Amino acid sequence: MSSRRNFLQQSVLGLGGAAVLPLLSKTAMAAGNAQNESKESGLQLGMAGFTFAKFDIEKSIAIMNRVNIKSLSLKDFHLPLNSPPEKIQSVLAQFAAGGISIYAVGVIYMKTKEAVDEAFEYAKKCGVSLIVGVPNPELLDYTEEKVKSTNIRIAIHNHGPEDKLYPSPKNVYDLIKSRDERVGLCIDIGHSTRAGQDPAKAVVEYNKRVFDLHIKDVSAAVKDGKAMEVGRGVIDFPALVRALNKIKFKGMCSFEFEKDMSDSLPGIAESEGYFRGVIKTIGG
Amino acid sequence: MSSRRNFLQQSVLGLGGAAVLPLLSKTAMAAGNAQNESKESGLQLGMAGFTFAKFDIEKSIAIMNRVNIKSLSLKDFHLPLNSPPEKIQSVLAQFAAGGISIYAVGVIYMKTKEAVDEAFEYAKKCGVSLIVGVPNPELLDYTEEKVKSTNIRIAIHNHGPEDKLYPSPKNVYDLIKSRDERVGLCIDIGHSTRAGQDPAKAVVEYNKRVFDLHIKDVSAAVKDGKAMEVGRGVIDFPALVRALNKIKFKGMCSFEFEKDMSDSLPGIAESEGYFRGVIKTIGG
Repeated sequence: MSSRRNFLQQSVLGLGGAAVLPLLSKTAMAAGNAQNESKESGLQLGMAGFTFAKFDIEKSIAIMNRVNIKSLSLKDFHLPLNSPPEKIQSVLAQFAAGGISIYAVGVIYMKTKEAVDEAFEYAKKCGVSLIVGVPNPELLDYTEEKVKSTNIRIAIHNHGPEDKLYPSPKNVYDLIKSRDERVGLCIDIGHSTRAGQDPAKAVVEYNKRVFDLHIKDVSAAVKDGKAMEVGRGVIDFPALVRALNKIKFKGMCSFEFEKDMSDSLPGIAESEGYFRGVIKTIGG
Repeated sequence: MSSRRNFLQQSVLGLGGAAVLPLLSKTAMAAGNAQNESKESGLQLGMAGFTFAKFDIEKSIAIMNRVNIKSLSLKDFHLPLNSPPEKIQSVLAQFAAGGISIYAVGVIYMKTKEAVDEAFEYAKKCGVSLIVGVPNPELLDYTEEKVKSTNIRIAIHNHGPEDKLYPSPKNVYDLIKSRDERVGLCIDIGHSTRAGQDPAKAVVEYNKRVFDLHIKDVSAAVKDGKAMEVGRGVIDFPALVRALNKIKFKGMCSFEFEKDMSDSLPGIAESEGYFRGVIKTIGG
């Protein structure tokens, strides 16, 4: 769906018909893949943009295609929030030409009202209806207003025990549970585990408020647990997938791989392989 | 166990104590990893040497360590069958120093009695008790004699519908089922699938005669099916793992990755990740 939205957005931004047609066929292919995936498992795989902090767009697209993941949450180092329309247009076109759909923007940190405004404006220009973000708690009222006025959802991201704002999914949930239903969570399962909260239980408990996931593994369920390949650490992935099936999760399971970030393709491949193996075995 | 055997063999071959001690600690580490794996899943992962046809020993060791697989079936391009003792000693020492155990030799093709003799002599010099091989059918009586006189087992490898000798596991089994119980099969699950034989059913049917596995996926269950990453093709890996658990398989599940052979690390990583995810989910 976000492919189509990108396509429409790119038309609005002024790509001519001749340029758009080949893009359409490529994004249609990407959407087709995502549908196949969804049909098989009920769960959709994506990539969190931070995974590619050390890579340019071309390399990021190549890695995603190599591991057959077509949906990306776009990070600002690939497209700064204050980019002019032509830059936005060219970056979106580059991803679309590479067969990659931008399904969300983020993670975006928001410490001021102006930053909240900028994030929602950026999401709109990028043609997505989901922001993965970290608005300061005192900005949640204002953020909720923006959600209502734009119909763009926000998935608030937890960041582990060292984080002052949202160490665990519970810290997010407690502040958003009574708000508009378009205000929800991006559960980072690694940080959640390090913060002592079982991500599978959090998924079931927060149910429809879980909009997005950051998938990784950690070496230990303590503050100093290190990020690692999915399956090598302490997280119980079969339990997580069963929890996602239980709530009929419709969001994206996005890999955020933070080990060996300059040479991450093998770790990403192992991670998505493991997760697909778990999904296939459980079915759903 | 094969680590220890290698170590003893290397001692026999004349490595001095000073050189041996650091090797011992590394091979002990490798054995430790394998035991952990075994404890968790009941199944042990290895690598079929042919995966590394385009790589030298150093690169092969690096890839195996990257994907955390420590057991290798040694292929002749890394150590020719007619190698002198010093060459055998140095190659075994190189693998041991890299934390890799040689659990078998092969695949070795045997078209003459002399080739059978050479294969068993080679296995003995390498300190392993398993040959993955393809003796011509008319040499099976002689091969069985060698198995009895050396106590080295042979796992006969099937090679798909285009193969004149052993297209499917059934073609192997029919010729060995009445022989010494140390004559068995290495089921190549990709070739078996292309030959129209379900590898999970073959595993259950041939049970204790299955000594080794070559793990891969194929795009279609037809002669022209193409090798690909585990989980992307048509093979039902949960069914395979359940079959292996059912027969309490004690052999090695060795990846033989034959796609992108000059740039295979991502595909190997995805494959072992998927297989581990299936194993973890099923348990056993």
